[in-house]
Amino acid sequence: MTPMAENDTVQEPPVAGETLGEIGLNNFAPYLLNRIMGRYNDDLTGALRSNNLNTAKMRALAVMAVVPGLTINELSVYAVTEQSTMSRTLEALETAGLVRRVERATDGRVREMYLTDEGRAEFERVWPIMWHSYRRMFDGIEPAEMQQFVGTLQRILGNVRQNAF
Amino acid sequence: MTPMAENDTVQEPPVAGETLGEIGLNNFAPYLLNRIMGRYNDDLTGALRSNNLNTAKMRALAVMAVVPGLTINELSVYAVTEQSTMSRTLEALETAGLVRRVERATDGRVREMYLTDEGRAEFERVWPIMWHSYRRMFDGIEPAEMQQFVGTLQRILGNVRQNAF
Repeated sequence: MTPMAENDTVQEPPVAGETLGEIGLNNFAPYLLNRIMGRYNDDLTGALRSNNLNTAKMRALAVMAVVPGLTINELSVYAVTEQSTMSRTLEALETAGLVRRVERATDGRVREMYLTDEGRAEFERVWPIMWHSYRRMFDGIEPAEMQQFVGTLQRILGNVRQNAF
Repeated sequence: MTPMAENDTVQEPPVAGETLGEIGLNNFAPYLLNRIMGRYNDDLTGALRSNNLNTAKMRALAVMAVVPGLTINELSVYAVTEQSTMSRTLEALETAGLVRRVERATDGRVREMYLTDEGRAEFERVWPIMWHSYRRMFDGIEPAEMQQFVGTLQRILGNVRQNAF
């Protein structure tokens, strides 16, 4: 889907019966999503801070652990982190010996990012913190409901994303 | 549910078969949720800016439109906005004649926040922008799937929230 031009946004009027009062705040998905993610990210930030970590580092480690060889730009999209913040984060991780940059074989101007063995060990230390927040979030939700939920999320991401991935 | 103490977060080890690589990034719900909400909020911020609005004002107007009489503290939770930001936002809205503060009848120290008629008209102007982003997010998702999705979100919010509402 192509990104929507800004001046498109007020051309299509809401359909009848779809005011916020009619939908109801507790049934308005963007409200629920922002409430959930505000709480989830704040809780996780607190848990990371007590382990001398921050959200950008955690996300960079997590993405590199499972999708090796991304560029800084791709990593910033995957990690939902401003590119300037991601650059600084990767420099700090590289200085700490957790990340290495490798020239792409087919295009020497492009640098691919990989975890070192130490970086992989650091992610092993971080994962239980992420996993605990994840389990708490989905406490009591059965596998079938979870699978349905994740399927809907994948379709929503397909609707809103601006990148091919 | 009581908030989790920070030092709880690394005590429970992940169960077997639940590494991030095994779950898969595209099946890890917090990743999908952050990707979706990052894009949704950025797109909405852009659409609001071209209408001389910002996210905090939009959320404050929306919540007051459907839940009148909240305190600033309650509004900041509903709107997922720092209390200091919410205070400044409400002052600006009050100066513009869109909001009024009313002493609570049962406790004169408490101020309840209400939209004025002008504030309600301003929300009518904002709603089509919100509605457009909402419809784009859920494009192609049928009512039954939507209902299931919202039900799961309500259960997740119950798991993570720190307030009774």
